[in-house]
Amino acid sequence: MSQNNLRCAVTIRVFGEEKCFGPGVAELLERVEELKSLRKATQHMQMAYSKAWRMIKVAEKNLGFRLLESSTGGKGGGGAELTPEARAFLSSYRSFESKVRQYAEESFKEIFG
Amino acid sequence: MSQNNLRCAVTIRVFGEEKCFGPGVAELLERVEELKSLRKATQHMQMAYSKAWRMIKVAEKNLGFRLLESSTGGKGGGGAELTPEARAFLSSYRSFESKVRQYAEESFKEIFG
Repeated sequence: MSQNNLRCAVTIRVFGEEKCFGPGVAELLERVEELKSLRKATQHMQMAYSKAWRMIKVAEKNLGFRLLESSTGGKGGGGAELTPEARAFLSSYRSFESKVRQYAEESFKEIFG
Repeated sequence: MSQNNLRCAVTIRVFGEEKCFGPGVAELLERVEELKSLRKATQHMQMAYSKAWRMIKVAEKNLGFRLLESSTGGKGGGGAELTPEARAFLSSYRSFESKVRQYAEESFKEIFG
C-alpha cells in the first residue's frame, strides 16, 4: 500500500497507578524551567493554574518524587524550578519519545511508504 | 533511574493534510466489520453518528479511498461493510501500532526499568 503523502504522529504517556506523565506535563515542566514560575508557565500555555497544579501533584504521587521546588529571592521574589529528579525524568522522557518516534517513522515508511 | 512500577502507553495517529486516522477510527471500523452497520457501531461506542460520519469522511479524503460500502439485502436489510482498501489499511495500522508498542515497551524498560 503506497501512501507517500501520509505521516505518523506518536504520543507517549507514562502510567503509574494512573496516567501521570505525557506531553502536557512535559511541556509544563519545560516552561517552568524557562520562566522560573509555575504561574507564568500556565499563562504561557493558556492552561488553568488549578489544572497544572493537579497534573503536577498526580505526576509526583505516581513517580514517587517531587517535580518542583520553590526558588526564593532574586528580582521579583520567589518562583519555581525543577527538582534534579524532575530534570532527569524529563530528559529521559524526551529521549525515549524521540527514540520511539524515530523508530515509528522508519517503520511507517516500510509499511505505508 | 529505576521506576519499576511505571509503564508507557503509545498512541499512533496518521496524518495526511490533517489528522485522519487513529485509535477512534480504527475501533469504529472494527465495530462496523463486526456489526455490519455504521449506526450499530456508533451505538456500541456511544459515539454520535454525525461525528462518526465526519471521521470516516476526513479519513477517506486524506487516504484517497473509500472505507465503507453499503451491503444490501440479507436479514434486516442493508448495512455497511469495509472496503478491501479499508481492511488492508486497518490491518497495516494495527500491525504498525503493535510493532511500535513492542519497541516502546522494550526501550522503556531500558531507560526507566
